[in-house]
Amino acid sequence: MLEIEQALSLVLQHVERTPRQCIPTADAVGSVLAENVASDIDSPPHDKALMDGYAVRADDLSTGVAEFNVVEEVTAGSVPTQPIRSGFATRIMTGAPIPLGADAVVILEHSDILHASPLRVRLHEPHAQPGLNILRQGQSLRRGEIVFHEGTEIRPVEVGLLAEVGRTEVAVHVRPRVAVLSTGNELVPASRLPDRGKIRNSNGPMLIALATHAGASPVDLGIGFDQEDDLRARILDGLREDVLVLSGGVSMGTADLVPKVLNDLGVKQVFHKVRMKPGKPIWFGVSSLNDRKTLVFGLPGNPVSSLVGFELFVRPAISQLKGLRVNQWPLRTVRLAHAHQQRSDRAVFRPAFTRQQGNEFVVELLEWHGSADLRTLADADCLAYFPAGEHDLSAGETISIYPL
Amino acid sequence: MLEIEQALSLVLQHVERTPRQCIPTADAVGSVLAENVASDIDSPPHDKALMDGYAVRADDLSTGVAEFNVVEEVTAGSVPTQPIRSGFATRIMTGAPIPLGADAVVILEHSDILHASPLRVRLHEPHAQPGLNILRQGQSLRRGEIVFHEGTEIRPVEVGLLAEVGRTEVAVHVRPRVAVLSTGNELVPASRLPDRGKIRNSNGPMLIALATHAGASPVDLGIGFDQEDDLRARILDGLREDVLVLSGGVSMGTADLVPKVLNDLGVKQVFHKVRMKPGKPIWFGVSSLNDRKTLVFGLPGNPVSSLVGFELFVRPAISQLKGLRVNQWPLRTVRLAHAHQQRSDRAVFRPAFTRQQGNEFVVELLEWHGSADLRTLADADCLAYFPAGEHDLSAGETISIYPL
Repeated sequence: MLEIEQALSLVLQHVERTPRQCIPTADAVGSVLAENVASDIDSPPHDKALMDGYAVRADDLSTGVAEFNVVEEVTAGSVPTQPIRSGFATRIMTGAPIPLGADAVVILEHSDILHASPLRVRLHEPHAQPGLNILRQGQSLRRGEIVFHEGTEIRPVEVGLLAEVGRTEVAVHVRPRVAVLSTGNELVPASRLPDRGKIRNSNGPMLIALATHAGASPVDLGIGFDQEDDLRARILDGLREDVLVLSGGVSMGTADLVPKVLNDLGVKQVFHKVRMKPGKPIWFGVSSLNDRKTLVFGLPGNPVSSLVGFELFVRPAISQLKGLRVNQWPLRTVRLAHAHQQRSDRAVFRPAFTRQQGNEFVVELLEWHGSADLRTLADADCLAYFPAGEHDLSAGETISIYPL
Repeated sequence: MLEIEQALSLVLQHVERTPRQCIPTADAVGSVLAENVASDIDSPPHDKALMDGYAVRADDLSTGVAEFNVVEEVTAGSVPTQPIRSGFATRIMTGAPIPLGADAVVILEHSDILHASPLRVRLHEPHAQPGLNILRQGQSLRRGEIVFHEGTEIRPVEVGLLAEVGRTEVAVHVRPRVAVLSTGNELVPASRLPDRGKIRNSNGPMLIALATHAGASPVDLGIGFDQEDDLRARILDGLREDVLVLSGGVSMGTADLVPKVLNDLGVKQVFHKVRMKPGKPIWFGVSSLNDRKTLVFGLPGNPVSSLVGFELFVRPAISQLKGLRVNQWPLRTVRLAHAHQQRSDRAVFRPAFTRQQGNEFVVELLEWHGSADLRTLADADCLAYFPAGEHDLSAGETISIYPL
């Protein structure tokens, strides 16, 4: 049986990025650049005041105090008209261009007005040196310089910087489309009260929310019954998308038709079963129906198994589809709040939550009732990860967690 | 001047939650419940098999091995019709109800078929005890039990659990509306090439993206010029929303009209200036125009100051508006990758990034060119936080970071 790292590596080997598309920068948060972005300007476009104050020659303040005649006032958005000679100053606002000849800005708080009109001031600045409170032209960005490389994820900060270099549109990888199909005769939609033997479909809505959160466009394929014709029709719909996520029908039960139907439809199995708990029966394969590549994940039907399978394999696949470089899980390490024994021949994931203790964060495992217990998972903010083997851990020892 | 903690506390004192609204659960990720949600069912609704296998009486396996006549097969979605007596078993699928009389499920992998029809099997299970591989009725949820309390943020896991208890709609707090107005004569829209003395408006797009990311609906008020009439008209538009965020025009420059115009419009100043770097000139006030309460934030015009002001004060206000209980920033602690000296009479935030080093994460400060340098911020994944004072820190010492 595969180890989780081998399984992830197999999944990622089959993921190609989605095509490029130009979209408004304002809609691009969470998307990944499909182009290098160069600056069309120097930024700042001129030597620029970082504070409100007086632009002067630093030399004039070698003693820390001096008096100046103010030749003009330059607000942000206007430009200086007078060069600065020794003994003269320009009143300047944050963001305004520094006048020729000046090389330092003394902040307003370090000034006294000696005479109002014409304006004459005394400035106190023991640390005056060239560059004080000035951002040099091009110091942040040079015209033609690559600001962002292909593969950069766009966050609000990137939106700001893209605006600064004039990019109101950017090329990104198309948002991957992820179809979600819940299977099982026991399932009824959330809107119905389940009869005896039935349960509501919680996986479908959860997986759709997870796919959306991961940056994909979800496609809801509803509930498929454990019956070949019904499954085949719905799966065919799913094979039109970038990813098809099924839940249920992949373990060893006789009603577990999913692998058979997938095989009949020419979906090539890459693996079935991974040495992990929960989530062992996970199935992964690739379809090339109608020249469209679809990654197919069959997740176990228990909600916690479904979630763990999604986080470990489907989310990284979505990230790579949308243009990110993925090679591992975003694990973090924290100390255990309590002693814990874990013995398993499989990698184990357990709902847990982190809390601050003194100067650092510790993790506490939650009591849970196995892989059908979504309730406990709702109290969790992470999954505690224990590699296969015997772990006899004391409080304060470090373990890895997968943040949710 | 206020300390940052005092300023946050003043902001939060003025925040009331937005009104309730019923929305489809599928659209509720990121929203906060405005009601307690009770379960309308026991979950599971019956004692339920957690694995595929055979339901038996645990007593029958006291020696670890025994043979059984299989009376029927129960798949998920169907119900058992035969009670189980000693020596008999029911073939059962994950999720199916446990038959009367049975109290354990032996997994399929621990079975050998002795005779196909009628089915007779040998089961090996050294650890058989009542409850093995069974989730008891109501063990995850009891009918009538509160599953989620008002104030719970809805994540994908919550979407799954809400489906399980039949909630296709939920009452949440209305998404707060946040108007964003960039001010300054030096600003041109991102679509234009700036003339001499001008720069593109990067704050507006960034703040809109930040507001969206924080869970608000943004309202773009464009660029306001440093001129009373223009500012007044745009600010009046902003005072129709839950929050108005201005950038620029709040420091000591003579063109900084924002506080004056806000005052003229009856916006009550709560504070102006906070002992922090960057972002000191931040302004906060409250408007009650037309019986609508609007929180007004005047952020400094430099992009990094704007971002820091947003993260420290606007984001917590949005979180509380949308129904979360907020009382502090989500700071984390990590070790410094290198020695660092920091001296300031104000709280300092510096762009930084974290990386794994052996078994833990360390943080590295980025070289930056002050509060106009959005470029460096794009390389950061957090802000390193240094309280006011003198800090002479060695590599390996712990500091607080604010994750971006």
